[in-house]
Amino acid sequence: MTAVAGRAGKPTLAVVGATGAVGTVMLQILSQRADIWGEIRLIASPRSAGRKLALRGEEVEVVALTEAAFDGVDVAMFDVPDEVAERWAPIAASKGVVVVDNSGAFRMDPDVPLVVPEVNPHAARLRPRGIVSNPNCTTLSMIVALGALHAHFSLRELVVSSYQAVSGAGRRGVDTLRQQLSLVAGTELGTTPGDVRRAVGDNTGPFPEPVALNVVPWAGTPREDGWSSEEMKVRDESRKILGLPDLRVAVTCVRVPVVTTHSLTVHACFEHEVTVDQAREIIATAPGVVLFDDPAAGEFPTPADVVGTDPTWVGRVRRALDDPTALELFVCGDNLRKGSALNTAQIAELVAGEMKGAGNRAEA
Amino acid sequence: MTAVAGRAGKPTLAVVGATGAVGTVMLQILSQRADIWGEIRLIASPRSAGRKLALRGEEVEVVALTEAAFDGVDVAMFDVPDEVAERWAPIAASKGVVVVDNSGAFRMDPDVPLVVPEVNPHAARLRPRGIVSNPNCTTLSMIVALGALHAHFSLRELVVSSYQAVSGAGRRGVDTLRQQLSLVAGTELGTTPGDVRRAVGDNTGPFPEPVALNVVPWAGTPREDGWSSEEMKVRDESRKILGLPDLRVAVTCVRVPVVTTHSLTVHACFEHEVTVDQAREIIATAPGVVLFDDPAAGEFPTPADVVGTDPTWVGRVRRALDDPTALELFVCGDNLRKGSALNTAQIAELVAGEMKGAGNRAEA
Repeated sequence: MTAVAGRAGKPTLAVVGATGAVGTVMLQILSQRADIWGEIRLIASPRSAGRKLALRGEEVEVVALTEAAFDGVDVAMFDVPDEVAERWAPIAASKGVVVVDNSGAFRMDPDVPLVVPEVNPHAARLRPRGIVSNPNCTTLSMIVALGALHAHFSLRELVVSSYQAVSGAGRRGVDTLRQQLSLVAGTELGTTPGDVRRAVGDNTGPFPEPVALNVVPWAGTPREDGWSSEEMKVRDESRKILGLPDLRVAVTCVRVPVVTTHSLTVHACFEHEVTVDQAREIIATAPGVVLFDDPAAGEFPTPADVVGTDPTWVGRVRRALDDPTALELFVCGDNLRKGSALNTAQIAELVAGEMKGAGNRAEA
Repeated sequence: MTAVAGRAGKPTLAVVGATGAVGTVMLQILSQRADIWGEIRLIASPRSAGRKLALRGEEVEVVALTEAAFDGVDVAMFDVPDEVAERWAPIAASKGVVVVDNSGAFRMDPDVPLVVPEVNPHAARLRPRGIVSNPNCTTLSMIVALGALHAHFSLRELVVSSYQAVSGAGRRGVDTLRQQLSLVAGTELGTTPGDVRRAVGDNTGPFPEPVALNVVPWAGTPREDGWSSEEMKVRDESRKILGLPDLRVAVTCVRVPVVTTHSLTVHACFEHEVTVDQAREIIATAPGVVLFDDPAAGEFPTPADVVGTDPTWVGRVRRALDDPTALELFVCGDNLRKGSALNTAQIAELVAGEMKGAGNRAEA
């Protein structure tokens, strides 16, 4: 395979898991962004093969996930369950495909870079396994803003609480919230112990408790000492992306009845003293970040305004009253866009640009 | 007025603001708890005078708020707006009434104790102005558990994020959420920028943004340097209740679409090293606190289960992975019960018990 393979001299992209919640957003994003790709091949499970999906103004037929499906592919964006990624990413990589994987399967593998193009683009170049990992959506919702602040003030500690949207648990999460809302709307529920639970019955979908009229302090699976897998991901991935293996990180992940867009409160401690003016300037000028912070004028980000947009939105910027090295932030990011599909597409573009550069050098 | 005034030798209680959201819960609580009161007089604005409300199995007629309404009253529980409390609490106190006030008017007055009976009951005895303040509901949702942990480990820093219920903004907050839910249930809203806002229109009630399918990082009014009044209350009141004027406190207050029960994530740093086993033992045995913490078995508190109950519920107890002196907690408390009406009633009972003691001594 040559670096400039694909029709019209442009690289060929595969989207693996094209029919899922994130896959659907990947196709929207690929239809909206500057079109650097030749063929874009849509790959999904055999039961979705033959379906036609809208992409770049055309209908594209989905093909089944097989080894042959990767023939001629330069870059593949994977959004599939961990166990599917574990099996198929190495197969694709063995055929010379650069895999950009959005599962949790490879993120902490020392031979797999974990990349946020605004923060550590250089890391994508060294990929011994032919795989680049995309961070989880909760980490991605804050890390671009924190990367910019870290570059100026040197981060030493994070205390993070999440307000996570149900679409982080896929289509089933969204369907579950919508069904529950239909059961509780127009009622007086939410005032006696267990009344919401009784109304919802077994209809809790991927969540351990009702999420309508409720918040649920659990996401993922149990890990050691009471931590959830989601919380450990935020800690481990933040450290890896920022290149700070000893960063102190304490996280509590909480699901809220929001369809899409994760919000986080962040208490960020730095090596150096910070000022709000400097912090606001850094946030306002960082690529991929929007400062939206004038509470007296009613300006602070909320999921209802941020959903469907690309940047990380930052508001409620304050310096801790008792610590001149600490900042408080409220951050919102669309978990399906920057939190998943967009960052994956950005990594794929980064890799493609590098291939093009290599191709140009080879031709020179 | 004697300390044992009131019918059958029991003290007379007044409930000022009896018809409001918190007042309604006060009447429920007074009907449920051990009945230490003689007459209980219900006082409200003149337009509510003459209404009859259920109390201790009887119908009691509401009287208008006037100076004469406090004749013969020993203790008065106030739940009225700040400006009403500012005017009327001193009038009642000048007539010898001990006022237990749930507004923000006097909480930081050095001559007014701020009391949580499980934490600083002694403080209620010294009340130069004849007024005892009840803390705000967000502080109260966590402070009993933190007081117990502080007694063992010595608190030095708190980082708190709230998930606050709409009933913290009164009946209008509840009505607003319910109306908004009726507008968004059964729709595909929550996926494009501003779609929830357009559906809700001007119907945002006491909130600056839609609260259905959303979270809103703002509660209260603007204070200096970007902080909200609600956040400053949590900091200032925690320091005063715990007797720690230099406690480092960083708070971000966020409204969520929950009817009643505030939840908080708490990162608590202590002077001494902590262990999870010790922390769990302290929480499990503290009066007014329930440990509910076995995530592998699906046990952690959520508002849907805690609403309508008296204690502070604590789950997700973890030691920070990078700091042996820090604990992570997820705490839920019914903001109308322990967060408002219950704590006010407990303070009133504390004061009444002290009067009875004084009365007995006077008779001896």
